[in-house]
This record gives sequence, C-alpha cells and structure tokens, in this order.
Amino acid sequence: MKHKIAMVGFGGMAGWHYNLIKDLEDLEVAGIWDIKEERREYAGTLSVKVYSGLEELLADPQVDLVLIAAPNDVHKSVAIAALEAGKNVVSEKPVTLSSKDLQEMMDAAERTGNFLTVHQNRRWDEDFLTVKKILEEGKLGEVFRIESRVHGSRGIPGDWRQEKEHGGGMVLDWGVHLLDQAMLIYPGVKLNTVYATVTHVTNQLVDDGFSADLGFANGVHIFVEVGTSNFIQLPRWYVLGADGSALIEDWSINGRIVRANGTDEKDVVPVITAAGLTKTMAPRREDSIYTEELPKVSGDIREFYQNVMAVLEGKQESRIKLDEVMRVMRLMEAIFESADKNQVISFEE
Amino acid sequence: MKHKIAMVGFGGMAGWHYNLIKDLEDLEVAGIWDIKEERREYAGTLSVKVYSGLEELLADPQVDLVLIAAPNDVHKSVAIAALEAGKNVVSEKPVTLSSKDLQEMMDAAERTGNFLTVHQNRRWDEDFLTVKKILEEGKLGEVFRIESRVHGSRGIPGDWRQEKEHGGGMVLDWGVHLLDQAMLIYPGVKLNTVYATVTHVTNQLVDDGFSADLGFANGVHIFVEVGTSNFIQLPRWYVLGADGSALIEDWSINGRIVRANGTDEKDVVPVITAAGLTKTMAPRREDSIYTEELPKVSGDIREFYQNVMAVLEGKQESRIKLDEVMRVMRLMEAIFESADKNQVISFEE
Repeated sequence: MKHKIAMVGFGGMAGWHYNLIKDLEDLEVAGIWDIKEERREYAGTLSVKVYSGLEELLADPQVDLVLIAAPNDVHKSVAIAALEAGKNVVSEKPVTLSSKDLQEMMDAAERTGNFLTVHQNRRWDEDFLTVKKILEEGKLGEVFRIESRVHGSRGIPGDWRQEKEHGGGMVLDWGVHLLDQAMLIYPGVKLNTVYATVTHVTNQLVDDGFSADLGFANGVHIFVEVGTSNFIQLPRWYVLGADGSALIEDWSINGRIVRANGTDEKDVVPVITAAGLTKTMAPRREDSIYTEELPKVSGDIREFYQNVMAVLEGKQESRIKLDEVMRVMRLMEAIFESADKNQVISFEE
Repeated sequence: MKHKIAMVGFGGMAGWHYNLIKDLEDLEVAGIWDIKEERREYAGTLSVKVYSGLEELLADPQVDLVLIAAPNDVHKSVAIAALEAGKNVVSEKPVTLSSKDLQEMMDAAERTGNFLTVHQNRRWDEDFLTVKKILEEGKLGEVFRIESRVHGSRGIPGDWRQEKEHGGGMVLDWGVHLLDQAMLIYPGVKLNTVYATVTHVTNQLVDDGFSADLGFANGVHIFVEVGTSNFIQLPRWYVLGADGSALIEDWSINGRIVRANGTDEKDVVPVITAAGLTKTMAPRREDSIYTEELPKVSGDIREFYQNVMAVLEGKQESRIKLDEVMRVMRLMEAIFESADKNQVISFEE
C-alpha cells in the first residue's frame, strides 16, 4: 500500500468512501475520527482504528491523505489544520460555505504546498457522462437548452442538513453537484447571467429546493432544478438541439433521442383538443424522425482516488481543480443572491 | 336563428369556427370575406355567402356579430371598423399586437356601446379545467409551483406567423393561451414579477418559443413554456403541492396524482448510482403514497358562443373580459421586455 487515508467524520458518506477505498489497490484506511460516540463504535465493529481525536489523527506520520466527511461548516477548519499538519486533503462537497472561506482554504494549500481537492463524485455519474457524449456526437444539431433536474419527495434529511449554520439546504447539498456538472458542459464559455428561485416547502431555515436558469455566453441556457417535494419526478436530463432532443429519465439511463431525419413533412394532421386545434403542436409523423437509444457511457468512480494518488505522485493533474470549485461556490452565492433579491445576477459578463 | 355572424378571414381557424357554429342553435353564418381568392372560392364550395369586400360585410343589416380570424395585425382596424358600423365583435387571439392597440379597440367598444370579446377558446380545454379542479380539491396541500408547457417540433408555421409585422411568434400565438390560463388560476392575486427567455432556433424574425417564470403575490410560481423544437415533449402540466404532485401528460388528460398518505417512512433504502448514493432522492415506498387518477373534467367549447349570444341578449356577463385580455397583453409585453433586457420585470407589485 502506497497511500494511507484518515477519515474525519464517519457518517453515511464516509461509509461510502470506506467501501470505495476497499476496492482500491494503493490506498488504505489508516483510521477515523468522529465526534459522535456511536460512529466511533461502529468503526470499531469494522476493525477500523479509531483515533483519540483530530490531533492524534493529524499527527499520525503514516497518514498522507485526510478525507473530511463531517458536516459542511467543519470542512474549512479541519482542512486548514490538516494542510498545516503536512497532510493532503480530500473534502466532501460542498467544500465549504462561502467563496471567502474557500479562498482561505486555497491560501492554506498554497502556503503549505499540500494538495487540496473536493469529492465532486457526480462527475463520474453515468447520466452526466452520457449527456456529455450526446453533446460530443453532435447529432442534435446546435444545442440551445439543457435541463438538469433531481427530484425527491422526502423533504431534506432530518439532521444538520436542515440547519443553515451547518451548511444545510439543497443548493449546497445537491446543487453543488448539478451546478458543477453544468459548468463543465461548455469549458471556457462564460456564464453571463443567473436567475434563481428557492423553495421553503418543508423547511424555513434552509432552502429545500431551487431552480436556476444559467445563461451562457454561447447562447445556451442550462436550467438546473432540485426539488424535495416532488412526488412525481420529471426526467433527470432534457437536451434540446435544433435538429433533435434527448431525454434521460433516471440514473439507470433510461430514455431516448428523437431527431429529424430530413424528410419534409407535408399534410400535417392537426391535433384536435376539446376546445381547439393545432398543427404547430401536432406530433411528428414517424417517417420524419429517427428514434434512437442513448449512447450510454459507463463511469468508474475509482478514478477519483486513483487520480488523487497520481497527483500526489506527480503523475497527473487533479481532475477536480480548485478554480472550478471556486466558480461553483461563487455560482451558489449568485443563486442565493438572485433568489433573495429576485433579480437576474450578472456573473461573468 | 337569432344571431348572424360574418367572418373576416376564412383560413384554418375560421374553418374551425364554421364547424363549431354549425352545431349551435341560435347562431348562423351570414357570410365571409377573405382577401385571398382561394379562400373565397373555398367558402363558395361550402355554399357560404362571399361578400364583395369588408364594406359590404359590415353594411349587411342582418349581421349582428363579426368574427375576425385574419392575421393578428389586422384585428385592430377591422374590429374598430366593425364596432363603428354597429356590429359586435369576436376577435381571434391575440386580440392585437400591443396594449396600446388594445386600448384603442376597448375605447371603440366603449364609444360605440357595442360588444367586443376575444376567442380565448383554450379556457375550455380539458387539461386546464382538470388543473383547476385539482387545485379546488386541495388534495396536494399548499401548492407552490405549477408548470404549463406546450411542446412541438415543427418550428412555426410557414405563413404570416413567421413575420413580426403580422404579429407572428410563439408568445403571441400559444403564449396568449397559456398565459391567459395562468392568470386565471389565482383570481385576484397579483403577479409580482416576470422572468422570461425567448428562443430563435428556427426563426430569427420572431420568437419560436419562450419560457416565463411568473412570481405571484401568494408565493406560487407558475412556469409557462412554449417550444417548437422539442422532439420529445415534457408533460403538459406539472403541479407541486406540499403534500403531493399532479402530472397531466397531454391533451387526452393522461397522467396521475401522487400524494403522501401520512405514513412516516423509516429505513429509507438509498439509491446507488455509478458514483454516489442518495437517500434524499430515493423514491417513496409504495406504502407511504396514494397514486390516484386525475379528476378529469369535460369542456364544452360551444359555451363560448352561447355566452356571446347571452351577452348580446343582456342575460349574462361575458366569460372573457377585456380587462383580463389587457392583463395578458401587458404580460406578453413584460415577457418581451424581460427577455430583451435579461431582467426580472416588476409587473403588479
């Protein structure tokens, strides 16, 4: 084993990391620390070393990597302490609660020369990779609108995620994933404007959902939405091009592509409704479209830690760059500002 | 027959009116005028009287009602001429191209004492009536978001509807219906703000689609969208309440209601994706929800002309009031302004 990782926080996401790391050849869990006794006891049942506290964890000379999977408000102080202690750091998302705090973390990485990155794991989700593939293939013609939604119906989890001071709310929890993905779709293209709304259906303290219309400099609008009071779900992705549309229903990549095949439609049969008729909105005839399967792409999340290790060994650049993380953090701030002021926010224009 | 209607313009929508009026007891088509010879010839094949011009039509003492089903830019001058000639007027939608023009038409109705109304036929469409019923029943709990979409994939029709000077474009064509419906959902509630985007996918001269986020004073957002390059359609209606959601797929009122049944869900099974896991977005267990059929409501568009005749006979108020039409006209202007300036527009706040 070449690298040893210590985990700060051993709740649900840390368990997910633990299982992921078990699958990796060159990475081993050195031990954990959690302020909650039941989590420490649970680690003991897995025969995972439990440190006596954060100090002992950071002082362990075997450890070269620290995972921070504690509540969001704790990330900054632990990350800076770990960097100062000579460790490299993987922080859970959101990396912290503000761009100002993130700048302090980046300054600490710069000052110490140690590596800091963020677990933006959903860059490896197959729905996102499939959307990128669809765009690369170009079969939809010039794309003008992309919609990315995640809908649940349980409100927000009943722990610190409901509390503002701990960095709760759906913008920071799920938004950070969907917005990170959205910002990677057109590399190098400026995001001109942001219009956002937030919901407080089940929770007054933090947002329990939001929508954001992102207007990019290439003319494309990306619409991002997270909902937690959606008892019926709209599709995960909806991509519109001049020549066709793609729809991804869910994380299992059900869905399809429908695109014009160049046949000129004549003699359109109007749709008759109870109170009107329409040719404009009549469905296409089957002989004027192709209906195709999605070009499903596989994702391998093991690449996240493999990349982290390669960075530590000087062999690769980080897949998740801090300027990307900062851009998304600033975008989340713009979303809160837009929703609060009910205004369109200029972002990079 | 008590009432006789003359038609100005005898294209597709006039044909629809012609068939509708054939079904009505107290209304008869007196004749038509169309500037296009082929339309006049077509009327002749139906044994419909063809006037020698608008003057003769307006001078016919038998005619008490004039339908204007000509291109949108013609509505105003014909309506005012008809009102001045002592006729009552039904205008196709959009009633005209601006609130200023509409005010002139309303002034003419006021001055002459004749009746002017607008064929907002989609108030009788069953999808809309079903949404109103769902809201009346209140089973979704406090509603916070309503989405209304109409998606086609043929661009916009290749006639005057592509030309700005004739009042083309999708805001005026389909927006006028969906916005009229949206404004009727919460009677008496102010529309505070409007954020809109328009598309120019297949047409640079006029908008070929738009989205509008309408923020009402009761906190509800109604999102209205029209698309003509959507090869896969999103559902016609999507209604979100704190306790449940409703989805109407199409004009045939396929869809469902799903709502919480009060069972507290424990032991949520997370959804595992390629690169993560989520409890928040895991689907509800079947034993914690009711899935119900939509309360489908029938619509009878014959009520439109029955109401017009009852108004002429002093027996009813108009179902379509000019202040409602003016409010939607002003909203369409706000949509163009929002999209043009890329700003949130204050509407009635």
